[in-house]
Amino acid sequence: MTDPLRIAIAGLGTVGGDVVKALHLHAAELAQRAGREIEIVAVSARDRGKLRAGDVSKIAWTADAKDLAKTSADVVVELIGGEEGIAREVVDAALRAGKHVVTGNKALLARHGAALAEIAEEKGRALKFEAAIAGGIPIVKALRESLISHGILAVRGILNGTCNFILTNMEATGRGFAEVLSDAQKLGYAEADPTLDVGGGDTAHKLALLSSLAFGTRPDMRHMTVEGIERITPDDIRFAREFGFRIKLLGVARRIGDGIDQRVQPSMVRASTPLADVDGAFNAVVADAGAAGPFFFEGRGAGAAPTASAVIADIMDIARGSIGPAFGLPARHLKNLEPAQTTSVSSAFYLRFEVLDLPGVLAEIAGHLAQSRVSIESMIQRGRAHGEPVSIVMITHETPQTAVERALKVIATSDKVRARPCMIPMEAA
Amino acid sequence: MTDPLRIAIAGLGTVGGDVVKALHLHAAELAQRAGREIEIVAVSARDRGKLRAGDVSKIAWTADAKDLAKTSADVVVELIGGEEGIAREVVDAALRAGKHVVTGNKALLARHGAALAEIAEEKGRALKFEAAIAGGIPIVKALRESLISHGILAVRGILNGTCNFILTNMEATGRGFAEVLSDAQKLGYAEADPTLDVGGGDTAHKLALLSSLAFGTRPDMRHMTVEGIERITPDDIRFAREFGFRIKLLGVARRIGDGIDQRVQPSMVRASTPLADVDGAFNAVVADAGAAGPFFFEGRGAGAAPTASAVIADIMDIARGSIGPAFGLPARHLKNLEPAQTTSVSSAFYLRFEVLDLPGVLAEIAGHLAQSRVSIESMIQRGRAHGEPVSIVMITHETPQTAVERALKVIATSDKVRARPCMIPMEAA
Repeated sequence: MTDPLRIAIAGLGTVGGDVVKALHLHAAELAQRAGREIEIVAVSARDRGKLRAGDVSKIAWTADAKDLAKTSADVVVELIGGEEGIAREVVDAALRAGKHVVTGNKALLARHGAALAEIAEEKGRALKFEAAIAGGIPIVKALRESLISHGILAVRGILNGTCNFILTNMEATGRGFAEVLSDAQKLGYAEADPTLDVGGGDTAHKLALLSSLAFGTRPDMRHMTVEGIERITPDDIRFAREFGFRIKLLGVARRIGDGIDQRVQPSMVRASTPLADVDGAFNAVVADAGAAGPFFFEGRGAGAAPTASAVIADIMDIARGSIGPAFGLPARHLKNLEPAQTTSVSSAFYLRFEVLDLPGVLAEIAGHLAQSRVSIESMIQRGRAHGEPVSIVMITHETPQTAVERALKVIATSDKVRARPCMIPMEAA
Repeated sequence: MTDPLRIAIAGLGTVGGDVVKALHLHAAELAQRAGREIEIVAVSARDRGKLRAGDVSKIAWTADAKDLAKTSADVVVELIGGEEGIAREVVDAALRAGKHVVTGNKALLARHGAALAEIAEEKGRALKFEAAIAGGIPIVKALRESLISHGILAVRGILNGTCNFILTNMEATGRGFAEVLSDAQKLGYAEADPTLDVGGGDTAHKLALLSSLAFGTRPDMRHMTVEGIERITPDDIRFAREFGFRIKLLGVARRIGDGIDQRVQPSMVRASTPLADVDGAFNAVVADAGAAGPFFFEGRGAGAAPTASAVIADIMDIARGSIGPAFGLPARHLKNLEPAQTTSVSSAFYLRFEVLDLPGVLAEIAGHLAQSRVSIESMIQRGRAHGEPVSIVMITHETPQTAVERALKVIATSDKVRARPCMIPMEAA
């Protein structure tokens, strides 16, 4: 056996705690698998009281996570989070000090991943981030090492457990977004400030990383449509059901022409396709690998054990000497992401208009759609109590997205239309 | 860049052909990912005419695949198949000559995997077999490298595309096994001799490998119940539907007590669970990783591109220097598989009896079941044309399998019962 692999862990929350626990509990087997022992030499956490004796009694402790770069550790595990500040400093300092880095920090890597990967490669060290996407699902490894021979055409994912939990619960209970969110917060499925989750930002970070892995591009948040689930109503979910669909917050990255289209948005997914059946806090990814076929991966999207499982898989890779480039291709070979022409993005759309129950309103909406050459496949109009606005719901035929957007912009200005129309793309598969 | 990785390929069927094609087509990108070129230096196929010019014009050709061990190749890719004979000789010779081996040969590895892994490790070479299980799904890598920190409790898989294609088609058309098999043969979804597929043997080979990867045991075919799909009738499929289940040929390996239970058999899978929705020639695997949660993987189970994708992933691992032990643990650390006590195996069961329409037959069956303490949750009896045997179908409560088997053995001897009773376990999840 070679020398032990020495680990330092920054951030001892539930995930960090489970990493420590599992490394101790399965130490003998992991050492056999890695061909060497895994030894935790230092940890950093704001509150030393968080360290449960037994587990970490022999481990050096520091309040300042940046100090971990100065320890004897071979690997620094960053579990602090956040795209700037201390997390970034810890990772940067560790790589520059010649440490390998394992992180679950999607925000950091979505913004600074390419630059950090360059430092890692200069130093001949690993930068691994399986835990950043979809909990324990080994999707980073799959895209980096397995699905690489036939080209990826698209990746689609349910990447945020909070949003999926909320949408699943809205569907099950018929209740509104705000009410279900508040419950999710009480149950610990949503943060006190849920913006990053429900607004789509967290999914966007993960999508930027998936996109980079799938297409060999530098992670790029600039060219991305990002929309959250805040405006989805129980009506939308009910109507989706009637049309044979379910609403999911999807991150989708796909080749269109010579460019790559990246978008995070609520999407209609056809019932009984694999993504439609992903419920609660689960995550899932579909990778469309052309002739090699679609691949579907599903698992718990968050939580201590699933995320710790991903962190330990990365540590074990490093222990075995598997130190490939962070995004599969060496950083210098990563291409800049060329966004797809928005005019080439097309699909069928679900449209919901909240209108005043006045004569001529349907004619007005239909007229504007026709002017933009948006043709309607089916329509539902539901009456409400007198004086309440009425919902008009339409499914379009496949249409360029720009055409629909143009029509909606005009329709939104009508004094018969209440609130901004809701527009949800229908996923083809 | 380091030297090119030199490849020799034994067997140029559809998979081998696609490996050659994809390695050429994506040569530049694969070289960037691996940090070195991948160069095919020799191929072996019975019929030289199979070599399409362009692709392999500069490549040395030999009729005897064993000769590949004598070439300058670093890696021998074995795509001949079969558990003994030429395939075994090629792999053995290659490893002994210090070559890495990549193979899709489940039969060979299920029988001789541990011994071959030992040779590979003595020589410091890789023995990789991603293509042996579930086409392009990276399940071997996931179990070997990713889902290793929290222990695996069970793996369940739909591992044979031919069986799944036949069952899906029986369900869709209402036709019988023989008829649908004959169609599948015409469409190329089943071999001229379909025994290994429909009899469960192919699934058994794959399950032995999954089991080894999941539990750190030597692949072991001895302690395994193996049953095929030949006796499934359209009636069984219809009844399953009525009870809210679908019938799938599952390979299941799970820890029970201190032992491991391995079985291949038609199983009732609850509708709208991920495995139940796997249709046609697709494959899927569920890994139950305890606290880290269930992981679900789905993809094309066979075919040129999916299988070639797996072969190339293994080649790329070797090119990057990722040369871990074949089954995750070094061969000397693999434990012998201790079979679970059959008395501890229990589940609910679907039972179908074909009986003569005579007074007292139901009482007789019910009596024998009661005597073995098998209690019935629900029952359906369907009338047929006069003189035809009648189907009695029952779902039991959870019962030790040995109790049900004991009862059926007695019932089968009754002169009122036609044919051997059909018994299908109901999967809990």
